[in-house]
Amino acid sequence: MTHLPADRFFPPDPTLRHLAEELYQPVAGLPILSPHGHVDPRLFADPAATFGSPADLFIIPDHYVTRMLYSQGIPLEKLGVPRVDGGPVETDHRSIWRLFCANFHLFRGTPSGVWLRDVLSGIFGIDEKPCAANADQLYDRISEQLTRPECSPRALFKAFNIEVLSTTDAATDTLEQHQTMRQGWDGRVIPCFRPDGVVNLDAPNWRANLDQLSRVSGVEVVDVHSFIRALEQRRAWFKAQGAAATDHAAVTPMTLDLTPSEADGIFQRALRGSPEPGDAARFTAYMLMEMARMSIEDGLVMQLHPGSLRNHNGPVYTKFGLDKGCDIPVQTEYTRNLLPLLNRYGNDPRLTLILFTLDETTYSRELAPLAGHYPALKLGPPWWFHDSLNGMARYFDQVMETAGLYNTAGFNDDTRAFCSIPARHDVWRRASAGWVAGLVARRMIDLDEGHEMMSELAYGLAKRAYKL
Amino acid sequence: MTHLPADRFFPPDPTLRHLAEELYQPVAGLPILSPHGHVDPRLFADPAATFGSPADLFIIPDHYVTRMLYSQGIPLEKLGVPRVDGGPVETDHRSIWRLFCANFHLFRGTPSGVWLRDVLSGIFGIDEKPCAANADQLYDRISEQLTRPECSPRALFKAFNIEVLSTTDAATDTLEQHQTMRQGWDGRVIPCFRPDGVVNLDAPNWRANLDQLSRVSGVEVVDVHSFIRALEQRRAWFKAQGAAATDHAAVTPMTLDLTPSEADGIFQRALRGSPEPGDAARFTAYMLMEMARMSIEDGLVMQLHPGSLRNHNGPVYTKFGLDKGCDIPVQTEYTRNLLPLLNRYGNDPRLTLILFTLDETTYSRELAPLAGHYPALKLGPPWWFHDSLNGMARYFDQVMETAGLYNTAGFNDDTRAFCSIPARHDVWRRASAGWVAGLVARRMIDLDEGHEMMSELAYGLAKRAYKL
Amino acid sequence: MTHLPADRFFPPDPTLRHLAEELYQPVAGLPILSPHGHVDPRLFADPAATFGSPADLFIIPDHYVTRMLYSQGIPLEKLGVPRVDGGPVETDHRSIWRLFCANFHLFRGTPSGVWLRDVLSGIFGIDEKPCAANADQLYDRISEQLTRPECSPRALFKAFNIEVLSTTDAATDTLEQHQTMRQGWDGRVIPCFRPDGVVNLDAPNWRANLDQLSRVSGVEVVDVHSFIRALEQRRAWFKAQGAAATDHAAVTPMTLDLTPSEADGIFQRALRGSPEPGDAARFTAYMLMEMARMSIEDGLVMQLHPGSLRNHNGPVYTKFGLDKGCDIPVQTEYTRNLLPLLNRYGNDPRLTLILFTLDETTYSRELAPLAGHYPALKLGPPWWFHDSLNGMARYFDQVMETAGLYNTAGFNDDTRAFCSIPARHDVWRRASAGWVAGLVARRMIDLDEGHEMMSELAYGLAKRAYKL
Repeated sequence: MTHLPADRFFPPDPTLRHLAEELYQPVAGLPILSPHGHVDPRLFADPAATFGSPADLFIIPDHYVTRMLYSQGIPLEKLGVPRVDGGPVETDHRSIWRLFCANFHLFRGTPSGVWLRDVLSGIFGIDEKPCAANADQLYDRISEQLTRPECSPRALFKAFNIEVLSTTDAATDTLEQHQTMRQGWDGRVIPCFRPDGVVNLDAPNWRANLDQLSRVSGVEVVDVHSFIRALEQRRAWFKAQGAAATDHAAVTPMTLDLTPSEADGIFQRALRGSPEPGDAARFTAYMLMEMARMSIEDGLVMQLHPGSLRNHNGPVYTKFGLDKGCDIPVQTEYTRNLLPLLNRYGNDPRLTLILFTLDETTYSRELAPLAGHYPALKLGPPWWFHDSLNGMARYFDQVMETAGLYNTAGFNDDTRAFCSIPARHDVWRRASAGWVAGLVARRMIDLDEGHEMMSELAYGLAKRAYKL
Repeated sequence: MTHLPADRFFPPDPTLRHLAEELYQPVAGLPILSPHGHVDPRLFADPAATFGSPADLFIIPDHYVTRMLYSQGIPLEKLGVPRVDGGPVETDHRSIWRLFCANFHLFRGTPSGVWLRDVLSGIFGIDEKPCAANADQLYDRISEQLTRPECSPRALFKAFNIEVLSTTDAATDTLEQHQTMRQGWDGRVIPCFRPDGVVNLDAPNWRANLDQLSRVSGVEVVDVHSFIRALEQRRAWFKAQGAAATDHAAVTPMTLDLTPSEADGIFQRALRGSPEPGDAARFTAYMLMEMARMSIEDGLVMQLHPGSLRNHNGPVYTKFGLDKGCDIPVQTEYTRNLLPLLNRYGNDPRLTLILFTLDETTYSRELAPLAGHYPALKLGPPWWFHDSLNGMARYFDQVMETAGLYNTAGFNDDTRAFCSIPARHDVWRRASAGWVAGLVARRMIDLDEGHEMMSELAYGLAKRAYKL
Repeated sequence: MTHLPADRFFPPDPTLRHLAEELYQPVAGLPILSPHGHVDPRLFADPAATFGSPADLFIIPDHYVTRMLYSQGIPLEKLGVPRVDGGPVETDHRSIWRLFCANFHLFRGTPSGVWLRDVLSGIFGIDEKPCAANADQLYDRISEQLTRPECSPRALFKAFNIEVLSTTDAATDTLEQHQTMRQGWDGRVIPCFRPDGVVNLDAPNWRANLDQLSRVSGVEVVDVHSFIRALEQRRAWFKAQGAAATDHAAVTPMTLDLTPSEADGIFQRALRGSPEPGDAARFTAYMLMEMARMSIEDGLVMQLHPGSLRNHNGPVYTKFGLDKGCDIPVQTEYTRNLLPLLNRYGNDPRLTLILFTLDETTYSRELAPLAGHYPALKLGPPWWFHDSLNGMARYFDQVMETAGLYNTAGFNDDTRAFCSIPARHDVWRRASAGWVAGLVARRMIDLDEGHEMMSELAYGLAKRAYKL
């Protein structure tokens, strides 16, 4: 279907390239496990859902794309990004598409560039590079194809050979989309329990979220005890709807043993609207401990995604809201922060805690030594900015010798852009092949071992780590 | 002119090497833009200026060279480095040269080794490695050539094909050298406004610098308001003399919104000589905000070079003064420190703020995400210790996927050693070719795109970022 | 003797591989200098000592091996790791061996995997990969060979061509094993003075260690003055027994000038058992200064190994004690922490201070700039988790351009596993050859220089840095 070079992304050295091709081939077509991501479940709940226009599909909702254009001075309004206040933004999608095509050179050498070209070629049969001159013609070709039944989300889910896709859902979500889609469709799209909106006391709308939690859980939340019972109720509901995992964000991975009365003191101050400095951070740290305990009890895999300073750009956040490309990583410390949790639960094989990082300095210094010791720990794949060819190479380089392959969790695409999922997994499989080829060529392993490792990287590790 | 290998510094793999050669060739001879550096303008103000002896040219003023010899136990006195107290140091330049040659092996695999060999070969036609045995012969050959007219600074400026060279000058500098050199010579040597000596309240001689600022600006500095007016006057003067940019050093890149009265409170304490702890750091943080505002108003590009702990070696500083190889980097944080400035000015396309770092961990974690989002930000090239083949490879690896090439600012040589400028730019162009060759060979871009990127790396990015 | 591939671990590119082979060959057989490690001197004190069973040799005492197995859920009890309380653990060594072999795939791509295969092949002639199917057969073959005289520790010491091996010994050690072994045996096994047990005020058993120090030194320790005299006495004793160096661990490399009375105040509080917060850290920081002073006086080389948070896993530490694979690195700062020591002693050529790190971010940012300036500083090789092929590549990449080769200290194996010493040095020599080959291939040095550098890396640097 695609005319992209068959040996793309492999090492240029002929020995390595041939080995990488040999290692990649058997795993290229394995089913896709997507155990963590942000695809909207409504795409699958409605059999008649479509992806909209080319600008809807490729530009407007993708903050990887809009941030790069914005960084070069293109206003988000001109890209059709909706304003919080409903103020005017570009509504002519063809005009948005032209702007994107005229600036496509900005994506040279970036992972977005790689994914975009792969999607254009793999799904739409377009092998030309977008540019000002071909923008209109590409727009028409893509628009036409997007109306076809084989380009519906459900059809592409099957065509992509996705075995399981996890969405990410608020603790207060009733998962109606997930229930709806199971009627008359057998694609496995499962929810993931992400309670940040009620756990992080300084989340926007925390109080409203909490009231909603009381409603949907049937547990009147009046103190930390009832709060935890409500969360346990929601976890059970998520699990009943197919969830395999929970997910937690925090600026730091701090964990903390608090007494119930200390925790309730913080919670009561939050209920009264009179928090003390540090309350929110300490409460999140305490709740991570509680979440680990619950995971041991209900078997849901626990994911932790720390280290992003959200909404760094105040003016853009005020005007356009969350997830507009202005979340910036900060230095992150795991060794001391995770000590309370790991001392309490890290030796319990019933727990699986999958760690992510935006701070690559922790790969070799903290995360690999921790994962190479604690039975409960696994390392997630390169995340966000590091989900790239070089990011993967650094991950393999800095993590694997110390953590060992079998303490890692395979790949997550972590994307909102459903159509890019095959491209992202393919990049991982190709990057994996390049790494394993290096081990074989340097005689650290033999080819049989290499093939086994490839099958783990592409499928087995994620399957087992996420209990899919 | 040189007999150095034509394929030096390219990747050894034949595919990559040939691609790199093909990519390098068209940019090898492009004019040199040197938008940030520390060459002494007196070299060009006096048509009869010379470089002095081989020791003057290669050793005595070059702290890259003297630090390495010092680290192996050779006293700075024996290298002719002048003492602050005027005490005795070696004055026999031939003897200094012999010591250098006898220890030339210390520079194996270092960037200084690369530059030294390139200068010896490219300018003086010397392809032998310096050693004890050939020291005298080399000294005589270089000495002889240094007396020739074609080895004068002005002649080499032309021979090097330098389109523009920026010096770095104190806010109190009257730029007489720059004015003088424009009479009867058309080399474009421009000043750069670096106000650290008056902005950093704990700078040595701050009070004397401030008095000098009042004198040269014609603005009596009595409070923060008049201080800022005096700086604005100086910026206008620098701009009139051709300046394109300002430059700012600080231990951290902290920025801070202060009210005018808070700022003036600090300033008044400094004037009275009774600062409080933290005053100097807070004032620098405040002034960075002011400098960004001024840049928006006058269009001068703003550069920030944070993270060096100056004069780490107290005894050496006391004896030999500034810039003797004992400035040591410290960990640097950008995400939180720059937040106030970027929230205020980072979305304004009239501002260009070029960031540098000595802490490579910030490349992928902080700087590339920031530059890949804020319109006002660009990333400067690898700086100081990282201005090396490996340092450049790490920069390309860790910055480009996330920041995007077009949010970077090309190359700076940042050197005091005028004769090494072509060598330094050549290393950058060769390293760039190696990186771009890797993108082409792994099929991430095609060769046409590669050529365009090379032209940007060698020339276009710096031209536009610095508005040259 | 071994059938491992002759070109193992070299770069796959043919140019580099051939160069690496050419560079490696002349140094492959050079004598081994092992100036820092943890081999038990009792192995050599008793001429009849043996290595015990295959499980004794390869598994039970090697926390690199047991941590990886433990991380995958295998209880340490099943690996025969002794419990602190003497409780029951597996005593059937064949059963332990089977468990190890059945899980040998966990070591794919890890340094332990590399060393294990090299030892199996090089010493025991076993080239099969261990697995469940061949576990019993391998156990029998190894067991049989371990009873032969040529497999005794003393015989292998000679067969390994070890010129000098340093153990690591408490300040209170009387070095009887070292004295014993010198009677009738000429292997050079020297002690190293490691006073952590008395210097770190919060060391377990500090008070008992201190009493022991009084006894063995003959100096009644009642204050910091007598404490220092007692340490000086021990250093003299160690030196008389052949010691070349001291070694110091600390969570941070903080150094601190205290007045004698400040230091004694801390010491007196410790003696009374009523320390204040920060006392231990400040005292260690002060004692590092004192140790540097003593090194200048007695000529012992000073080593500093900071940055490991020991016994991170409380439950494992309680049950199994020290050194069970649960020491986890933390971020480490050198520039500011070492400033007091380096300002006092760093310019003194009589001092050699060899720095190690578990925080690779400090390589290019702090350690290389420091070592490339201070005459007293050398950088030790990649340590612990970073003693690996990739760890070495990162070290060469990030250290050498700035520090210069000649400010590094060659290789340490730092191991408890005596039989792995040749394998570890061979990995270093091969990794060195790969790095130097890259310099030659990129025309930064010529082949003659490369050979000289190889000889330094394999032998000369350690010989001189440790004054062996």
